[in-house]
Amino acid sequence: MRTLRLVLEYDGTDFGGWQRQLNARTVQAVVEDALAEMTGGPVTLRGSGRTDAGVHARAQVASFTTEARIPVDGFRRGLNAALPPDVAVVEVAEAPEGFDARRAARGKHYCYRLYTRESRSPLACRTAWHVWRPLDLAAMQAAAGALLGEHDFSAFRAADCERPNPVRVLRRADISREGDLVRLDFEATAFLKNMVRILAGTLVEVGQGRRDPAEMAVLLAGRDRTRAGRTAPPHGLTLEAVSYQDPHGPPAPGV
Amino acid sequence: MRTLRLVLEYDGTDFGGWQRQLNARTVQAVVEDALAEMTGGPVTLRGSGRTDAGVHARAQVASFTTEARIPVDGFRRGLNAALPPDVAVVEVAEAPEGFDARRAARGKHYCYRLYTRESRSPLACRTAWHVWRPLDLAAMQAAAGALLGEHDFSAFRAADCERPNPVRVLRRADISREGDLVRLDFEATAFLKNMVRILAGTLVEVGQGRRDPAEMAVLLAGRDRTRAGRTAPPHGLTLEAVSYQDPHGPPAPGV
Repeated sequence: MRTLRLVLEYDGTDFGGWQRQLNARTVQAVVEDALAEMTGGPVTLRGSGRTDAGVHARAQVASFTTEARIPVDGFRRGLNAALPPDVAVVEVAEAPEGFDARRAARGKHYCYRLYTRESRSPLACRTAWHVWRPLDLAAMQAAAGALLGEHDFSAFRAADCERPNPVRVLRRADISREGDLVRLDFEATAFLKNMVRILAGTLVEVGQGRRDPAEMAVLLAGRDRTRAGRTAPPHGLTLEAVSYQDPHGPPAPGV
Repeated sequence: MRTLRLVLEYDGTDFGGWQRQLNARTVQAVVEDALAEMTGGPVTLRGSGRTDAGVHARAQVASFTTEARIPVDGFRRGLNAALPPDVAVVEVAEAPEGFDARRAARGKHYCYRLYTRESRSPLACRTAWHVWRPLDLAAMQAAAGALLGEHDFSAFRAADCERPNPVRVLRRADISREGDLVRLDFEATAFLKNMVRILAGTLVEVGQGRRDPAEMAVLLAGRDRTRAGRTAPPHGLTLEAVSYQDPHGPPAPGV
């Protein structure tokens, strides 16, 4: 039995998220179906994590096992020919036996994009949230800085988030401008449900002067979701990368 | 009678080009219909030039006249509320009486984008042509350099191009890489029909080693469309900017 690792890129606009569901077109189902067709048997794909409906990925990682003897390049080419235009396989590689893309993940990088020109942008609207009131980026960066490190992020997770432990370690929270686009880059070992979107929604309120940057520490300490900002819409969010421990390298850092 | 100047952004994917047609959804028709609705009478829009079906624009310029007394900001907001998601108005400004966006245009900037990773990209595929064989950018830049200046571009225009004069002045032809994207930036006083797409198609053949950079001068001199490369697909092309003479500034350069 071989274990394979896939890197997938997708435009989430027309997907009901990553996870297979009965009544929605999902990335997992579309890729599993293409793999089943290629290998001649059912395939179960393990994603590094779920992405919500409408969320994009530049490099989602998934693993599966198969008896098929197709070479990795044949898998990549065959899948890209079979998959619809809004999902593609960037890489296929052999993985160590027992590799599980979810359990082995050591970190994730998400980018939330804001489009800040007053007039909406047809060329940016699929991957950026249109926020047309001026943003104070220095205030947003000050607020984001307060989130860094190990915290109980209960204030910034969906009400129905089922993770028993709400403590996460945020390693990066950078606000930067590229023309009319503002990027919010977050890196952590793992994220809670809707965490990046709630952080983005709250930071936008800071940027618009509706919250003080100093409030972030208060929100964290209060652990009350209802005090934080709105959940920013999914289409501004992209899973940029998932990191894994190099099996031949030094142990992963504790954070 | 007021004359107004519009700057428009559009995703050309689902448009049959700029120009109004009987049996296609076009940018001109969609914007004219929205303007007619707002002003209560028919409006004729003059674009700086036509863009083909599938071609995008970040800043197409158009002009129209109206008796309506709506302020420019009201026009912009009202149009953006009325127009579909794939077209937006970036700017509305009063223009001098008699201003005609086509006749007054002094230069255009087009960018043709190539996506060069072997696996196709769902996030780039609407606005870049997927060219997966490796490209020699130095060869492409050498070939592009031979196009600069005043030339008869008959070898690089559509067979049905109706312009009586095939001479154009190319002021910029820059090849640059941004990660997996390669940009081909062209600026000229004006372009012939399909000119940028035929230049892009030919330069890709140079980049893939199928043509020598020195061939460009021979192609120009031969003035034979059938000797140049294929017409690159429309979705990689974006009209980036249209320039006008500043009525209060120095005269436009002769080139």
